[in-house]
Amino acid sequence: MKFSFKNDYSEGCHPNILQALLEHNTDQQAGYGEDQYSLQAKELIKQKIKKSDAEVYLVSGGTQANLIVISSLLRPYQCTISASTGHILNNETGAIEATGHKILSIEKEDGKLTPADIIPVLENHKNIPHQVMPKLVYISNSTELGTVYTLKELEELSKFCKENHLFLFMDGARMGHGLTSEISDLTLEKVAELTDVFYLGGTKNGALIGEAIVINNQELQQDFAFNIKQKGALLAKGRLLGIQFLELMKNDLYFDLAKHANQQAMKIKNAMKERGVQFLSDTYTNQIFPILSNELIQKLTEKFDFYVWKKIDENFSAIRLITSWNTNDEPVNEFIEIIKTEL
Amino acid sequence: MKFSFKNDYSEGCHPNILQALLEHNTDQQAGYGEDQYSLQAKELIKQKIKKSDAEVYLVSGGTQANLIVISSLLRPYQCTISASTGHILNNETGAIEATGHKILSIEKEDGKLTPADIIPVLENHKNIPHQVMPKLVYISNSTELGTVYTLKELEELSKFCKENHLFLFMDGARMGHGLTSEISDLTLEKVAELTDVFYLGGTKNGALIGEAIVINNQELQQDFAFNIKQKGALLAKGRLLGIQFLELMKNDLYFDLAKHANQQAMKIKNAMKERGVQFLSDTYTNQIFPILSNELIQKLTEKFDFYVWKKIDENFSAIRLITSWNTNDEPVNEFIEIIKTEL
Amino acid sequence: MKFSFKNDYSEGCHPNILQALLEHNTDQQAGYGEDQYSLQAKELIKQKIKKSDAEVYLVSGGTQANLIVISSLLRPYQCTISASTGHILNNETGAIEATGHKILSIEKEDGKLTPADIIPVLENHKNIPHQVMPKLVYISNSTELGTVYTLKELEELSKFCKENHLFLFMDGARMGHGLTSEISDLTLEKVAELTDVFYLGGTKNGALIGEAIVINNQELQQDFAFNIKQKGALLAKGRLLGIQFLELMKNDLYFDLAKHANQQAMKIKNAMKERGVQFLSDTYTNQIFPILSNELIQKLTEKFDFYVWKKIDENFSAIRLITSWNTNDEPVNEFIEIIKTEL
Amino acid sequence: MKFSFKNDYSEGCHPNILQALLEHNTDQQAGYGEDQYSLQAKELIKQKIKKSDAEVYLVSGGTQANLIVISSLLRPYQCTISASTGHILNNETGAIEATGHKILSIEKEDGKLTPADIIPVLENHKNIPHQVMPKLVYISNSTELGTVYTLKELEELSKFCKENHLFLFMDGARMGHGLTSEISDLTLEKVAELTDVFYLGGTKNGALIGEAIVINNQELQQDFAFNIKQKGALLAKGRLLGIQFLELMKNDLYFDLAKHANQQAMKIKNAMKERGVQFLSDTYTNQIFPILSNELIQKLTEKFDFYVWKKIDENFSAIRLITSWNTNDEPVNEFIEIIKTEL
Repeated sequence: MKFSFKNDYSEGCHPNILQALLEHNTDQQAGYGEDQYSLQAKELIKQKIKKSDAEVYLVSGGTQANLIVISSLLRPYQCTISASTGHILNNETGAIEATGHKILSIEKEDGKLTPADIIPVLENHKNIPHQVMPKLVYISNSTELGTVYTLKELEELSKFCKENHLFLFMDGARMGHGLTSEISDLTLEKVAELTDVFYLGGTKNGALIGEAIVINNQELQQDFAFNIKQKGALLAKGRLLGIQFLELMKNDLYFDLAKHANQQAMKIKNAMKERGVQFLSDTYTNQIFPILSNELIQKLTEKFDFYVWKKIDENFSAIRLITSWNTNDEPVNEFIEIIKTEL
Repeated sequence: MKFSFKNDYSEGCHPNILQALLEHNTDQQAGYGEDQYSLQAKELIKQKIKKSDAEVYLVSGGTQANLIVISSLLRPYQCTISASTGHILNNETGAIEATGHKILSIEKEDGKLTPADIIPVLENHKNIPHQVMPKLVYISNSTELGTVYTLKELEELSKFCKENHLFLFMDGARMGHGLTSEISDLTLEKVAELTDVFYLGGTKNGALIGEAIVINNQELQQDFAFNIKQKGALLAKGRLLGIQFLELMKNDLYFDLAKHANQQAMKIKNAMKERGVQFLSDTYTNQIFPILSNELIQKLTEKFDFYVWKKIDENFSAIRLITSWNTNDEPVNEFIEIIKTEL
Repeated sequence: MKFSFKNDYSEGCHPNILQALLEHNTDQQAGYGEDQYSLQAKELIKQKIKKSDAEVYLVSGGTQANLIVISSLLRPYQCTISASTGHILNNETGAIEATGHKILSIEKEDGKLTPADIIPVLENHKNIPHQVMPKLVYISNSTELGTVYTLKELEELSKFCKENHLFLFMDGARMGHGLTSEISDLTLEKVAELTDVFYLGGTKNGALIGEAIVINNQELQQDFAFNIKQKGALLAKGRLLGIQFLELMKNDLYFDLAKHANQQAMKIKNAMKERGVQFLSDTYTNQIFPILSNELIQKLTEKFDFYVWKKIDENFSAIRLITSWNTNDEPVNEFIEIIKTEL
Repeated sequence: MKFSFKNDYSEGCHPNILQALLEHNTDQQAGYGEDQYSLQAKELIKQKIKKSDAEVYLVSGGTQANLIVISSLLRPYQCTISASTGHILNNETGAIEATGHKILSIEKEDGKLTPADIIPVLENHKNIPHQVMPKLVYISNSTELGTVYTLKELEELSKFCKENHLFLFMDGARMGHGLTSEISDLTLEKVAELTDVFYLGGTKNGALIGEAIVINNQELQQDFAFNIKQKGALLAKGRLLGIQFLELMKNDLYFDLAKHANQQAMKIKNAMKERGVQFLSDTYTNQIFPILSNELIQKLTEKFDFYVWKKIDENFSAIRLITSWNTNDEPVNEFIEIIKTEL
C-alpha cells in the first residue's frame, strides 16, 4: 500500500489517547460532558490561555463547530465574512447557510483577511434594511492554504473588528500547526485575547475526533450549551472528547504533535527548494504546494498518494502534500530521495 | 463511589472495540466514511437485515440521527407525528423544529403508537393549506419507557403508514434492548422490512459513540450523504464509527450486549416482583420503573445512583433503574440483597 | 347569493380607505414604508397608545406578523408558549416552526392563558440544555374563540412574564373586537403598557390588508426592520398600508368598525338567548358559537353561509357566526327572524 | 416637489384597478385566494401563456415570491446560481439563505447568465458530499440592470438547464418591461415554455402590490400552496390580488403600461444619445444609466430626483433614471429640455 500525504486525518490517534481510553474504560461517569475528564480538560485549556472566565465546549468536528458557533452568535439578519478560501464557503455543503446565514466572500490568494479587505464589504452593505448586516469575521489559522497569521496581523484585525462591532472567530482546525510554524510569533494566549471565539482542532492533530470551542467574549457565553445539544453535537459519552483533550493538553502534547507534522513538511519543502522547485504559496506549516513536472508527479504517484491541486501549464502542476502527527521519517526520506534523484 | 443505575452510557465501550482501535491505529485510511472498516460494517448490517439495496450511514448520536433523518425526508410544510413520550419531543432542545418542522404529539402512556392513535390526527389536519401536512411517523423501540413493539403491532402500523403515504421511522437508540427483550417477537430483518428508515444505536449499547442509520426505502436514499455533511455529522475519521460497528456486528455482539443488559434488569425486576413491588409500567428491557417507599429509596440511595422518576403519593415514588452492557452481577446482587432485606 | 357569516374578511374595505387611495393615487412617494402616509399612521398609533418611544411596523397579514415577531425575538434554542387554541399552533402551516422555533401548547377551553397555566410548563423545562427554553408567551385578544382578556388578567400575566423573563406578545388580529367588547375593561394604552409586542389587525377590521406591529419594549426594537425585509414583508408601495392605517386611526374609525361588528353579533346572540339557545362559549365579540338543532341549522343554511363548528350530539351542533365591520342590519334581522319563527 | 425618476413604484396604481376595487367592494367573497377575481385572473394568465396545466399563485411582492419559489423547489443541500447582479444576492437581506439555501454568484457585467457562465460552477461543485449541489438557475428579465434576454439566449439556457437537471426560474418583477422592450423577441408564451417557474411582476408595473407566480413544470406544482401559507404570503383578502391581476391582464393593459414606461425612458435616452452622452450599459427598457458631468447632474437635481449610481471619474458619474407606467410627457420633456440646453 502506498504511503498517503493526502491529509492529516488518515491514521487513528496518538497512543496516549488509546492508553487513557483503556485505563478509564470501566469508570462510571456522568453523561453529556459532565464527566471528570471533560471538566479537567476544559480546566487545562483555560489555564493554557490564562483566561479563567473563558468557557470551553468540546464537539466532534470542524463543520459542526463552525455551524454551532456561527448560528449561535448571529441574529437572523446578520451574516459572516470569510476569505474566498474559507472552509465554510467551499467544503461544508452549505452548512452555515442551512442555519439561515449568508457568507460574504472576499477574494484572497493567501487565505488571510485584513482590515483593508473588509472595509469595502462594510461600505457596500449600508442599504438598510435591504441587505444583510455583516457581523462576524471568520478566519482560520493555519489557513486552508497552510498560511499563518502573525501577531501583528491578528492584533490589527482584532482592533478593527472591535471598532466595527464585528465578532472575530478563528477556525482552529489546524491551530496547532499554525502556532508551531517556524514563522509564527502568535501564541494560544494571544489568540484567546484577540478573538471572541476560537477552537482547538483535535481531529487533524492526533485525536480520533474533537474540537474544543473556546468562548472568550463573556457576552457570548450565555446559554451556549443549548445550541450544542440542539445541533446534535452533545455526546452522551462526553468522556470520549474529555479523555482525548486531557491527553493532548498534558505536557503540551498537542503542540509537539503539530510541530512534528510541520517539521516533516519543512524537510520535504527544503529539499525541494534546494533543487529549485517553485511553490504555489510559501507555507511554513504541514501543508505544502510544490510545482512539479507531470513526469515527476507520475513517478511520485507510484509510491505515494497525494492530491494534484492545480494545473500550472501543459507540463507542470502543483501538488498538495500534507504531513501529520504520525508521519515518520521513513516516507519523508524516501520522498526526498526521489526528488534528489530526479531533479 | 456509588454504583450508578442512572443510564446505559456511563461506562466506556466494549473491550473488543478498544482492542480493534489499537490494532488498526496506524493504518492509513480514506476519510469521511470511505475507510474499509466503515464499508465492511455497512456490509455486515445489510447482510444482517438481508437487504442488499439498503443504504447505511454511520453518525455519532441519537439527536443527530433524528434531526438528519427527519429534515432529509420532509418537505418544508410537512411534519412528524410522535408519541408524547418521544425523545424528539422532550429531550432534544427543539432539534427537529430547528430544522423547520413541527412535531405533532399524541398522548400515550406506554410510549407506543397505533393506527387508531394516528387517525384523528390525520382527520384534524385536512384544512389545506392552513395546516402542516403530517408525513412521517416517529416511533422508538424499545421506547423511552422501556416498552417494545410486537411484530403484529409493527405490521399494522407499517401497513397503515403505507396506505396513508406516511413515512415510518424507528428510532433505535435502544434497538438491541428492544429486539432481545424476552417478550419481543420482532427481528431486525422485520424492522427493516416494515420501516422506511431506522437506526441501530451504538452509544447506549457498548460503543463510545455511533448510530447506524439504515434507509430501506430506496426513494429516500438519493443524496442522503449531503445531509449528513451539512449537519456537521460526517466524521473525518469515519474509521472510529466503522471499527465500532464492525466489532458490534461481528458474531452478534450487539445483541448479546443488549440481552445481558435486559437480563440484569429482569433479575432486579423479578426479585422485586417476588416481594410485591408494583411498577409504573410493565417493561421487559433494560429500563424498569419500580414504585418504592421513600424510606427504601433513601436507603438504596446510600449505595446506588438512580433517578427518582415520579412521585406517586406522600410515601411512595417510582424510580428508574437502567442496566447496561457492562452492568455485572455484583451491583445487581447487592441491590437485590437490600430489597430482600428491606421488603 | 347567500349572505355569509363565515368570517370578517369576506368584503373589501371601508369606503374611506378607497377614497384615500383614489385621492393620493398619483402622488409620488418614497418606497418601502418611508412614504408620508405610513409615517403619519405610525405617529397616530403612537399617540393613541401614548408611547412616543414605541416602534411601529406595518405588514400585510397575521401569519406574517406572527412569524416575523416570534423569529425576531427568540434565540435559536428558545420557544413560544401558546394556548392550544392559538392561531400559530393550528392555522399557520407550521410557520413558526419553519423559522426554527417550537411552540409549547397548553390545553385551554377558553383560549386564554394565566400564570397558573404557565407555571407547570416552566417547571417541566428545567433539564438544561436538553430542552428548549420557554421565552415568549403568545396570546390573542380577542382570542380565536371570541373571548377577551380583562385588565386584571392581563396585568397578572404581564407581571408574571416580567418576573420570569418571558416576553409577552399579543396577537391582535381582532384587537378592535377585543377592546370594544361590552365586557372589556382593557384599553389599547394598557395593552401597550403590559405587553412587549402586540399588533393591531386591519385585515379583519375593515382594511384590505394590514397589521400594525407595535414594539413597546425598547430592547426589542433594534434592527427589527431587517427581519421584515428578510421575510418578504416589506412592501415596495408601503403607501398601501400607510393609507389604510391612517384612515382607520383617524377619529377612531378602527374602534367604531369593531364595535359595530360586535354589536351585530350581540343582537343575534341576545335574540337566541331569549329563546333559550345554549352557546359553546359565552362570547361578547364578533364571534358567537350557538348550539342549534340540525334541523334548524339546515333551515338557516338555505339563506346563510356559516361554519358548522362542532357536533354536540346526534341532534345538535354548534355553529360559528362571525359578523364584520360591514355586516348591516338586513341579514342580521333576517337571521333573527328565522330564529324567532323557528324557536 | 421634485419629480422622481428614482423607481417605478413611487405612484399608486392604474385607475382601472381602483375602479374595480370600488365596484366590487361590498361583494362577499371566499377568502385566501378562492375569490372569483383571483380564479378569473389565474385563468386569464393561463390563457395568455397557452398552458392550461400551469398553476398560478398570487403573492404580494418580489422578495416574497423569490423566497417561496426557491425554498419550495430545493432540498436542504441544494443551492441556487445567480448572476452577481441578482436581486436575491444583493437586495433581499439574505432572504434566500434565511430559508437555508446558499446562492452561488457568477460575476456578470450585463446581469445575464449563459451556459458558458454556469459550466465552471458545475465543474467546481463535484466534491460530493462536501459541497452544495447546484440545482436552480435564477435569472431576471428585464434584469436588475435593465437588460433583456433574447429568445435564442433563453432557449440555449433552458436547454442547458434541462440537460443538467437544473430548474430555471425567471424573476419577472419587470417582466412587462423586458418583453415589451423594442429589442426583445421573447414572448410570455415562450417564457412559460422555456422556464420551470416565472413570475409576472405587478408592483413595478401599475399594481399596488402583487406578483403572479406561474409554475409551468407540473412536477413542481404539488402542494405549492402550503409554502405560500407557511411563509405568511396567503392574503385573507386574496381579492386584492385577484382584482389587480384581472384588470392588468384584461386587454393586455399589463403590456401597454410597461411599453409606455419603456418608451418614456427611450425618449430620454435618445435625446441624450443625440448629444453624445455615453451610457453605463446599453439598455432598452425603463431603466437607463447615462454618464453625465457632475455639473449637469447638479443642475438636474434641482428639478428631479434620481440615484447617482456610480462614480466614473473626478468629473463624471453615471445616474440611474427609471420611468414608470405613470410617467407622463411633461417631466420627460422638461428633463430632455435641460439636456438639450446644457449639452
